Amino acid sequence: MLAYFEYSQLTIEDKKKLVLRNSDSDHKIQKQVEEIIAEVRENGDRALISYAEKFDKVSLKSLIIDEDEINQQAETVDRNQKRALEIAFNNIYMFHRYQLTKEKQVETTNGVSCWRENRPIERVGLYIPGGTAVLPSTFLMLAVPARIAGCKEIVVCSPPQPDGKINPYIAYCAQLLKIDTIYSAGGAQAIAAMAYGTESIPKVDKIFGPGNQYVTQAKTLVQLNANTAIDIPAGPSEVIVIGDDTSNPAFVAADLLAQAEHGKDSQAVLLSTSKTLIEQVQQELREQIEVLPRAEIAKKAIENSYSILFDSKQDLMIFCNDYAPEHLIVSVDEPEAYSRMIMNAGSVFYGHLTPESAGDYASGTNHTLPTSAHAKAYSGVSVDSFIKKITFQQINEDGILNLGPTIEILAEIEGLQAHKNAVSIRLKHLQSKNK
Amino acid sequence: MLAYFEYSQLTIEDKKKLVLRNSDSDHKIQKQVEEIIAEVRENGDRALISYAEKFDKVSLKSLIIDEDEINQQAETVDRNQKRALEIAFNNIYMFHRYQLTKEKQVETTNGVSCWRENRPIERVGLYIPGGTAVLPSTFLMLAVPARIAGCKEIVVCSPPQPDGKINPYIAYCAQLLKIDTIYSAGGAQAIAAMAYGTESIPKVDKIFGPGNQYVTQAKTLVQLNANTAIDIPAGPSEVIVIGDDTSNPAFVAADLLAQAEHGKDSQAVLLSTSKTLIEQVQQELREQIEVLPRAEIAKKAIENSYSILFDSKQDLMIFCNDYAPEHLIVSVDEPEAYSRMIMNAGSVFYGHLTPESAGDYASGTNHTLPTSAHAKAYSGVSVDSFIKKITFQQINEDGILNLGPTIEILAEIEGLQAHKNAVSIRLKHLQSKNK
Repeated sequence: MLAYFEYSQLTIEDKKKLVLRNSDSDHKIQKQVEEIIAEVRENGDRALISYAEKFDKVSLKSLIIDEDEINQQAETVDRNQKRALEIAFNNIYMFHRYQLTKEKQVETTNGVSCWRENRPIERVGLYIPGGTAVLPSTFLMLAVPARIAGCKEIVVCSPPQPDGKINPYIAYCAQLLKIDTIYSAGGAQAIAAMAYGTESIPKVDKIFGPGNQYVTQAKTLVQLNANTAIDIPAGPSEVIVIGDDTSNPAFVAADLLAQAEHGKDSQAVLLSTSKTLIEQVQQELREQIEVLPRAEIAKKAIENSYSILFDSKQDLMIFCNDYAPEHLIVSVDEPEAYSRMIMNAGSVFYGHLTPESAGDYASGTNHTLPTSAHAKAYSGVSVDSFIKKITFQQINEDGILNLGPTIEILAEIEGLQAHKNAVSIRLKHLQSKNK
Repeated sequence: MLAYFEYSQLTIEDKKKLVLRNSDSDHKIQKQVEEIIAEVRENGDRALISYAEKFDKVSLKSLIIDEDEINQQAETVDRNQKRALEIAFNNIYMFHRYQLTKEKQVETTNGVSCWRENRPIERVGLYIPGGTAVLPSTFLMLAVPARIAGCKEIVVCSPPQPDGKINPYIAYCAQLLKIDTIYSAGGAQAIAAMAYGTESIPKVDKIFGPGNQYVTQAKTLVQLNANTAIDIPAGPSEVIVIGDDTSNPAFVAADLLAQAEHGKDSQAVLLSTSKTLIEQVQQELREQIEVLPRAEIAKKAIENSYSILFDSKQDLMIFCNDYAPEHLIVSVDEPEAYSRMIMNAGSVFYGHLTPESAGDYASGTNHTLPTSAHAKAYSGVSVDSFIKKITFQQINEDGILNLGPTIEILAEIEGLQAHKNAVSIRLKHLQSKNK
């Protein structure tokens, strides 16, 4: 059921096609999303309440879910589930806090000191998808690094549930994260609200979070038109599993299916130096897929996926880096053998006992990752995504005397006399002072 | 000549207007730029050669400037100028190399190890503006961090000079940077070439560099349509100078003018707690501006600029952070007093003897910085801009036994059975093995 190719038989064109992702049909919905954004800019909260009725079939009195409502709903989560969310929270926190580092000051020339200081992005907006699938894990993955960064205002939007209440798991995460307000807003309208601000929902500087193609399109548009930064360009989720004769075919199949159940447009790719493994994985897939509640979705995704047999690790990694997968599972005895060759990937899972699910939920790494080959140029979300690094410099008398003449020459080369003057006027001042 | 306001007299609307930047008229030229991009995609090198004739008035035989040509032109740079470029190169190198750091591995749960590894973006494209102003400094600012990051391929495009040769200063920088090929291509067509690739010019993963509004528009379009990452959204250059009774009005005026000479749309803002200083700076501006070769440009920019008198440092910094300046010069005796209050800025210059020109050229900090209030969410270009940080994780038997049950519960909460299976199948395997 997984399409099968042999790398040695593929033409350059074939390879190009295989690494190409489903292109979004975003452009089709652009007009609709533009209308939603315009409506939210014009009518603020009223627009959001009317979209909640239209899209979420809920009549909202207020967009604000306050601390009392959050606490009430959080109460309904059972003990084991609370414990699991706490463990995930702690692991994500532990891994991410080391990402906040302090850099040393550098004296590049005697008297010229340069350094960088971290500053949190002051106001960030987190979009937590709701509707059919509610994702408390995404809430943790976005809000934990925001907290570590020290963002002053963390605005959280999530679509209203059918009963108008907040999902209990989201509520419990809010407690863990010490977030006391959540806004009932979903889809493109939530993104518009955070980009432009409404009566209830504060305008933010950067918007994070996954979503359907309306959400994605809205993020693209506000990035362009509202000067609102966004986390990463979005696309369907994907995994590459690397296998060889040491791989466990049942584990490999389970990992491919965990990816496949995400959505029909997900892609689960198997790259292997062992033909036997590919055959065994096919067999496992057939068996494991039937018992899945989301079997229909998974089957569609598997149809959209493939396996490739390679003669060498080197060829395999050339293809893999060209694909630049969001998730890369190296399901072999000696994953380290691939380490130096891995150039492009979002998150990497080493060895037989490291399923992608671990990183999706609780190992500590972030699950908001670059898809659609964006891993060639983008990293996943981290504390870095919530801070700016501002450069500072301070020059003393020695410094300007040492470096000034160089700056004067360079300004002259570029024909920028006033740039030169800014130095010359200081040098003259020091000369007359020191006489 | 610098408009004057008193902060206490400003309404909220006034303040909003003052922090608002000139909005680009980019949308007007969008169609033209789309045509150029389509033409380059269709006809590759031929399109570039024909645009060079049309826009740069040069008939090019080849787009490639090779090592021989680079070496020839570099020879013509005089000794002192070479030395100045070398000092700038060294300082930029020294400051940036500390940005490449190694992070520690974190064991978030017994048996669960997580870490991040840096990987260079493999192919980067640098756009170095040419034409009236040639900017060797920009070449250094972009290529030095690319070299430190370890990018495999550094593609450099710069518009052809009227004589068809490469500018000698650019050539000498190429020698310092060990870059042996430069492509003669400018404007939107150069951006299109690097995003899509042509016969001569390789396709890249991320494009860096400033440029006119055609270049900026082209970068926006290829980011959207070609999945090519870009450095930072661009806008006109700007500075805020903070002054008080301790400031030297001649220095402050010189710094404002260094900004003003960049372009008519540049903005040079003076924020001061001293009315006397503002008056003295006005006087200095009048005197200093007249002797500038680019006085006409500077006068226009100064008309587009302003000064504000504040009652307190606190109010001053509220305004300053809301403006989020590209450059911030704190031209006072005790700049450290502002340190904790600085939240949004691209690069900061402390004290009387630290002109912006220092950072523009040679102190070591980068001069490719966020404009138009993007400093609220973006950092300037650094080594970080040329790398990805890939997360890795490895789980052993203890790890999956410890963390597995948590992952199972979380996958259940989100209704993702196959995510749960990927763990359960491993736990079962270990149980049967350990019996």
